[in-house]
Amino acid sequence: MPNKRKIINDPVYGFITINNDLIFTILSHPFFQRLRRVHQMALAYLVYPGAVHTRLHHSLGAYHLMCNAVNELRAKGTQITEEEEIAVKAAILLHDTGHGPFSHALENQLINVPHENISLQIMQSMNKELNGQLNMAIDIFTNQYHKKFLHQLVSGQLDVDRMDYLTRDSFFSGVSEGVIGYDRILKMLTVHNGELMVEEKGIYSIEKFLVARRQMYWQVYLHKTVLAAEKILINILKRVRELHNNGDKNLITGTVTDYFLFEFNGKMNEAVLKKFCELDDIDFSFAVKKWCHHSDFVLSELCTRILNRELLKIKLQSEPFDEKIIHQKLIDAKVQLNIDDSLVSYFVFTGEAVNTLYRTEDERINILFKDNTVKDISTIDDPLIHQTISSPVKKFYICSIS
Amino acid sequence: MPNKRKIINDPVYGFITINNDLIFTILSHPFFQRLRRVHQMALAYLVYPGAVHTRLHHSLGAYHLMCNAVNELRAKGTQITEEEEIAVKAAILLHDTGHGPFSHALENQLINVPHENISLQIMQSMNKELNGQLNMAIDIFTNQYHKKFLHQLVSGQLDVDRMDYLTRDSFFSGVSEGVIGYDRILKMLTVHNGELMVEEKGIYSIEKFLVARRQMYWQVYLHKTVLAAEKILINILKRVRELHNNGDKNLITGTVTDYFLFEFNGKMNEAVLKKFCELDDIDFSFAVKKWCHHSDFVLSELCTRILNRELLKIKLQSEPFDEKIIHQKLIDAKVQLNIDDSLVSYFVFTGEAVNTLYRTEDERINILFKDNTVKDISTIDDPLIHQTISSPVKKFYICSIS
Amino acid sequence: MPNKRKIINDPVYGFITINNDLIFTILSHPFFQRLRRVHQMALAYLVYPGAVHTRLHHSLGAYHLMCNAVNELRAKGTQITEEEEIAVKAAILLHDTGHGPFSHALENQLINVPHENISLQIMQSMNKELNGQLNMAIDIFTNQYHKKFLHQLVSGQLDVDRMDYLTRDSFFSGVSEGVIGYDRILKMLTVHNGELMVEEKGIYSIEKFLVARRQMYWQVYLHKTVLAAEKILINILKRVRELHNNGDKNLITGTVTDYFLFEFNGKMNEAVLKKFCELDDIDFSFAVKKWCHHSDFVLSELCTRILNRELLKIKLQSEPFDEKIIHQKLIDAKVQLNIDDSLVSYFVFTGEAVNTLYRTEDERINILFKDNTVKDISTIDDPLIHQTISSPVKKFYICSIS
Amino acid sequence: MPNKRKIINDPVYGFITINNDLIFTILSHPFFQRLRRVHQMALAYLVYPGAVHTRLHHSLGAYHLMCNAVNELRAKGTQITEEEEIAVKAAILLHDTGHGPFSHALENQLINVPHENISLQIMQSMNKELNGQLNMAIDIFTNQYHKKFLHQLVSGQLDVDRMDYLTRDSFFSGVSEGVIGYDRILKMLTVHNGELMVEEKGIYSIEKFLVARRQMYWQVYLHKTVLAAEKILINILKRVRELHNNGDKNLITGTVTDYFLFEFNGKMNEAVLKKFCELDDIDFSFAVKKWCHHSDFVLSELCTRILNRELLKIKLQSEPFDEKIIHQKLIDAKVQLNIDDSLVSYFVFTGEAVNTLYRTEDERINILFKDNTVKDISTIDDPLIHQTISSPVKKFYICSIS
Repeated sequence: MPNKRKIINDPVYGFITINNDLIFTILSHPFFQRLRRVHQMALAYLVYPGAVHTRLHHSLGAYHLMCNAVNELRAKGTQITEEEEIAVKAAILLHDTGHGPFSHALENQLINVPHENISLQIMQSMNKELNGQLNMAIDIFTNQYHKKFLHQLVSGQLDVDRMDYLTRDSFFSGVSEGVIGYDRILKMLTVHNGELMVEEKGIYSIEKFLVARRQMYWQVYLHKTVLAAEKILINILKRVRELHNNGDKNLITGTVTDYFLFEFNGKMNEAVLKKFCELDDIDFSFAVKKWCHHSDFVLSELCTRILNRELLKIKLQSEPFDEKIIHQKLIDAKVQLNIDDSLVSYFVFTGEAVNTLYRTEDERINILFKDNTVKDISTIDDPLIHQTISSPVKKFYICSIS
Repeated sequence: MPNKRKIINDPVYGFITINNDLIFTILSHPFFQRLRRVHQMALAYLVYPGAVHTRLHHSLGAYHLMCNAVNELRAKGTQITEEEEIAVKAAILLHDTGHGPFSHALENQLINVPHENISLQIMQSMNKELNGQLNMAIDIFTNQYHKKFLHQLVSGQLDVDRMDYLTRDSFFSGVSEGVIGYDRILKMLTVHNGELMVEEKGIYSIEKFLVARRQMYWQVYLHKTVLAAEKILINILKRVRELHNNGDKNLITGTVTDYFLFEFNGKMNEAVLKKFCELDDIDFSFAVKKWCHHSDFVLSELCTRILNRELLKIKLQSEPFDEKIIHQKLIDAKVQLNIDDSLVSYFVFTGEAVNTLYRTEDERINILFKDNTVKDISTIDDPLIHQTISSPVKKFYICSIS
Repeated sequence: MPNKRKIINDPVYGFITINNDLIFTILSHPFFQRLRRVHQMALAYLVYPGAVHTRLHHSLGAYHLMCNAVNELRAKGTQITEEEEIAVKAAILLHDTGHGPFSHALENQLINVPHENISLQIMQSMNKELNGQLNMAIDIFTNQYHKKFLHQLVSGQLDVDRMDYLTRDSFFSGVSEGVIGYDRILKMLTVHNGELMVEEKGIYSIEKFLVARRQMYWQVYLHKTVLAAEKILINILKRVRELHNNGDKNLITGTVTDYFLFEFNGKMNEAVLKKFCELDDIDFSFAVKKWCHHSDFVLSELCTRILNRELLKIKLQSEPFDEKIIHQKLIDAKVQLNIDDSLVSYFVFTGEAVNTLYRTEDERINILFKDNTVKDISTIDDPLIHQTISSPVKKFYICSIS
Repeated sequence: MPNKRKIINDPVYGFITINNDLIFTILSHPFFQRLRRVHQMALAYLVYPGAVHTRLHHSLGAYHLMCNAVNELRAKGTQITEEEEIAVKAAILLHDTGHGPFSHALENQLINVPHENISLQIMQSMNKELNGQLNMAIDIFTNQYHKKFLHQLVSGQLDVDRMDYLTRDSFFSGVSEGVIGYDRILKMLTVHNGELMVEEKGIYSIEKFLVARRQMYWQVYLHKTVLAAEKILINILKRVRELHNNGDKNLITGTVTDYFLFEFNGKMNEAVLKKFCELDDIDFSFAVKKWCHHSDFVLSELCTRILNRELLKIKLQSEPFDEKIIHQKLIDAKVQLNIDDSLVSYFVFTGEAVNTLYRTEDERINILFKDNTVKDISTIDDPLIHQTISSPVKKFYICSIS
C-alpha cells in the first residue's frame, strides 16, 4: 500500500510535498500542531508587520529543504537509505517542538531549560507512542548516529534550520538584505569523509549566507525596537513574579502558564512535559491583555505598552552610555511616571546586544577543493571573509520613556 | 514644521511610506493597533500555513495602494486636494477596524452587527478625540462626499480594499492563481463624470482580476477544509450559548468575550464600543483552549478538534446530498461518538456555499472607451466575461466525522 | 563512471540541472546552440523590452519542467524507465530546433515548412551522428512510442512546452496576467489508461492556465503593435522577392538567407537542412540593416521603420473596417509618401487576428475524477470554462501610416 | 496641453511611466533605439542564458530609478525644479548611448574612445537637433551644474546607473547573490551641503550593495567562462587586423564595422559619430558568423568557437601560473591544432582579472549621521566594511585548448 501524498502551499518555496505515513503522523500530532500557536519571530511583528509566521511553518520549510538536500546528496553518490531519509526528515520536523511562547525572547526567563533539551524530551515521548519509530531520528538529532553529516544537516553551521529561518524570516519581514541563495547552497553541499562540506565553487554563496545572517541580526533580530519590546516582556515576567512573591493573588491566568510562572523548579518530567505542550503564545498574550487591567501600575503600564505598541524609547550605540545620561533619564522617568527608585528600573535600563558572524572555535563551514583538500571558510585567502567573521560585534542600548 | 516620515517594510509591496501626522496618529491609536490581533483570513491558516497575516497588515497595504491611486489619478489631471488625500487615506486605514475576532467566520454569529457599521462608529469615536479631523474621512466612507470616486476607491467593485486583500491573501497563502495585476489596474484607473472607471486598455486586467477573485473563493476562502473549520467554530459558539442558557456557569473566560457571548443585545453604544475594542482573536482562541477541558463532551470535542486540527470530514459537490447518505453518516456518528440524536447535528450537517463572480445588479465596473462612451464590463462583447460573470455558483457540502 | 553534473542559472526556475552525458552532447551541439540566436518572441521586444529571451532558453526551461514532470509521475507510481526518461528529455530539448529566424512571424513566409517537420529532420540528422541514441526520442516526438503520455508531455494541450513558454514569456515581458501555476499543474498530472490527465483537484489550475493563455494572446502575442511590426517584416520579405523577380541584384546579403529568399523550393534534404542550420535572427537582422540603405523606397522605408521602431499605426476592433476609412487611409498614404497605387498596399492594409482558447475538436485536457471517470474540461459543469473556451475570438486590424 | 503618458512593462520594476514630451522624443530617437541592439552584458549569456537584456532596457530602468530618486529627495525637502527633473532624467537615459558593440568586452579594442566621451558627443549632437533642450542635461552629465547631487545621481558610487545594472543583471542572470535593496537605498538617500548622501540607518543597505557588487564581479562579470569568451572575441579582432595588415581582402563585412576595424584613427567628429550610431551587436555578430568560413585557420577557428560555444578552457587562481604549465599547454596546442609558434598565442595565453570593492581614493559614499556629521563608509567602525573594501582582489587566469 503506497503512502498518502499531500502538497502544502508555501509562499516561500511553492509547494511542500508530504509522502510518508510516519511524516503524516508527526504533522498531525498535537505536539507538532502546537507550533502553529508559537510565533517564529516573537515580537518582531511590532516592527515588521508581516513577520507573524509560526514555528510550524518554519519546521515545514526546514523539512522541505531537507527533502532537497537528501536528493542533491544522493545525486552526487552519497548513500542515504530510505530509513535514514525518513529519520532525518522526522528529526528536522521536530527540532523546534521544544520552543515555548515568545522564545527566544522568553527562553531563559519563563522556562530556563534550553529548547533543544525539551525538543529531545518531546521526541522521546512521541517515540514511546510510536513504538520506537523515532529511534533513528533521535540518534541523528543527538549526534549519536554514525553518519555525522545527517546530524550536520539538522544542526550545524549550514543546517537546513538556518537556511530556512533566514530565508523565511527575510521573506515575511520583507527585508531583502537577508535573502540567501538557499537553492544554490543546497546544490553545493557534498559529503567528504562522512562530513558535510561545500564545494569550492560554492564559496561566494557561503559568503553571501554569512553576510545575510549578519544583516538579519542587526536589521531584524536585534532591531532596536524589537529589542525594546522584548525587554518589556522580560520586565513583565519579572514584575509578575515579584508581585507573586509579595503575595499578590490576582495574577492567576487560569492556564498552565501559572505553573511555569510560579511553580516550575526547572526539572522536567513527563507531567511537566505534558503541561509544557499546552503552553503557547495565546496563553501569554492573554495574560498580558488581562494584566493591562491589574492594579499594580508597573505591571499594567508595561502590559499596556506592549499591547498598544507604545514601547520604550531605545538608543543603540557602539560605546557604553554615559552615566550622566542614564541618571538624567532615571530622574525624568521617576517624575513623569510618579514612581519611586525601586520601580524606575522597569522603565529605564541599559544592556548589551552582541552578534558574532562566525565562531571559529566551535562550528565550522568546511570547503572541499577540487584537489580534495579541505579548508575552513575563515582560513581561505579572501579579504572579505577571513578578517571579519570571527570577531563579535557588541552594541550598547539604553531604554527609557522619553 | 514638516511631517515625520517613516517607512514600513512590507513583503508584498516593498515599502510603505507614512508621511503625515494625522496618519501617524491613526496608526498609533489602540483601535488601529488592535487589528494586529485579528487574523485577516480567520482559520484559513489551517490549510495554508502562511495565511497568518493580520487585518492591520491588510489595512496598511490598502493604504499603500490608495497612495498610488491618488498619485495616478492626479497625474491624469483629476483634482484631489491635500485635505481629500489625507481623508481618503484615513478612511481606508480605518475601514476594517470594525472587524471582530475570526470574522468573517464569526461575523454574524458573535456580534451580528455588520462590521462596516462598527467601523463607522469607531471612526466617529476617534473623530471626537481628534476634534473633527476625521470629518471628511467619515463623509467619504459613508458616501456623503460630493466626489463619489473617493468613496469608490474605499468601497466599490474595484476599491483598493479588494485589490489589497486579493493580492495579500494570495501572497501569504501561496496560491499563485489569485495574483492580480494591481499595479496595472491602478495605472488604468481614471475619473469620468465624477466616477471611478477603467480605461479601455485595462479590460484584460479587469478580466484577470475577476477570474483571480473567483479562484481565490473556490481555492481558499471556500476551500472545503477551511469551511469545515469555520463550521466547527460556529458550532462551538452555538453550543456555548446553549449550555449557558441551560445554566452552565463554567463557560466564563474572564474577558469581554463573555459580554458578547452572553449579554450583548445587538445595540451598540459608547460603552459597548469600548468593550468591542478590547476584543480580538486572542480572547476567543484562549476560550477555545480553555473549553478543551470543559466537562461537556460536545464542547470539549469541538474545541479539541479545532486546536489540534482534527477537523470534520467534508465533501463538496454541485448537487444536494442524498438523504440516505446523510442519514447513514448521522447513524455512524451517533455510534462512534456515543451521543444521542439531539447532539449529533453538531458533528454531521449539510449546507451550501455560494459565490457570484460579479453582481450586475448592484455594483459595476465601468470601462471608459477612447470615444468617451462608458460600458459596464459585463456588457462588453467578449466571450469570457459577459456570459459567465453574473451567474452565481452554488456548491453543497456535508460535514461528518468519517 | 558517473555522468557529469552541471547546474545552469535560470531567473525563472532558479537552477536547471544537467546530469546525463547524452543531454550534455545535445546541449553542446551546434544545432542546439543555434537557438541562442533565435528570439523566442520574435519582435515582441519592440513593445516589451524585456522579451529578448531565446529559443535556447525556452528549450532549457521546458527540459527542466520535463524533469519535474517525470519525478512527479514516478512518485505516483507511473513506470518510466531511465531510457525513457532520457529520451523524453532529449525530445523536448530538440522540439524547437526547427524554428527559423523570427518565427512565428516569418514561419510560413521565409521557409514554408512547418517547424515541427524541420525539428524532426534535425533530430534524425543528429541521430545518425549519435549512432541511434535518439531513436526513442524520435519515436516519442512522432507519437510512435507505445506510452502515449510521453508524447503528450512533449506535445499536447498541457505539454511542458506550453507551460514553459507561457511562464517564460510572461516573466520576461513582465505581463503578470500570463503567470500560470506551472508547479501546481505538474503536481496534478497523472497517467490513466496510458494517457496524461489532470487530477480533479487541479481543475482550477487548468482554468487559470487557459485564461492566462488567452490573456497572453491578446496582451502580448497579438498585441497590436507587435502585429504591426510583424506585418512590416512580412512586407519586407514580399518586397525583396518582388524586387528580386524584377532583376534587382543589390539584395544579396552574403549569407544562407539568400538561398531561402531566392532559391529554396520548399523541398528539404540534407544539403538544405545544413543551410537551414546556419540561419538565425542575426542574418535577417543584418539584412534589414543593410536594406535600410537600398535604393528602393518601399524596401528602405519598411526596413528603417523596423530598425528605428517607427512602426505603422494600427487599429484593432471586433468589426471589419469600413471601406471608406480604408480608402481614405490609402489616399493619405499615397500623398504623404508620394507613391503610386501599386505600392501603397505595403503601408496601408487590413487583416484579421484570431485566437481560440481551447479547440474541442482536436486536443483535449482530460480530468480524472476520484471515482475514475474521465471528462474533458470543456464538458465540466462550471460556468466559466464550458461556455466560453471553444469559440474563437476574431479581431480585425488596419495598418496605415497615420 | 498635457504631456502624453505611457507605461512600459518591465519584469524588474513592474511598470515604467513616461509622461513628458522631451523624454518621449529621446526614447524615439534612433540613437536611443540603437541600444536595443547592444547587449547589456556582452557575452555573459554564454554562461547565463537569461542575460540577453539590452542597454536600452537598462537605460529605461535607470530612468525609472531616477524618477523614484527625485520623488524621494523632494519628499525630504530637497529643491528640484521641474526643468532639473527632466534634465537629470534625460541625462540618465542618454548616459550609455556611447556604448559600442559587445562593450565592455570590446570597449578599448574596437573603438578605443571611452564610452562616456561618445555618449557626450551623442548628447551634443541630439541637442543641436533639439535646439538646446538638452543643455541642462549635458551640464549635469559633465558635472558643470551647480547642484552636484544631480550629477552624483547620474554618475557616482551610488548612482542609479549602478543600482539598475546590479539589479537588472542579477535579475536576468538569475544570480540571487547580486540582489540589492535598491528601493531601500533610494529611500535612504538625502542631500546635505549640496551632495548626495545616505542616512545613517541606511548603512546596512550600503554594506549589502557593496557585497552584492563584489559577488556580481566574481560570479558573473569576471566569471571564468565569460572571461574566456571575451578573450576569444578580442583575439578575433586582433587576428582580423593582423590579416588585414597583411593584405587580406576577404575580411570586409559590408557595414560600418569595416570602418572601425580598418580605418578609424581614434578621432571622433560628426561624420564618425554618424557611423558609430549605425554600429551594433548585429554587425559584429554577423561578421563573426561570416568569418567562420574564412580561409585563415586561426580566424575561422576562433569564430566557430564563439558561435558554437566551444570556448577555450580557462583556469583562475590567486597565484600566477607556473611557467612550466604554460609551456606545456603551448606545446599541446601546437600539436593538436597543427599550428606554429607565432599563432599558438591566440589559443594559449595568461592574464589577470582585478576587482576592487570600493576605491577610497576617488569616489566616496558619505553617510549622514543624525548629529549632522558626515563620514565616508570606509571609515565607520564596523568590522565587515572598513577592513576589506579598499583592497583590490587580483586573480590570474590561463586560457588553453585542453
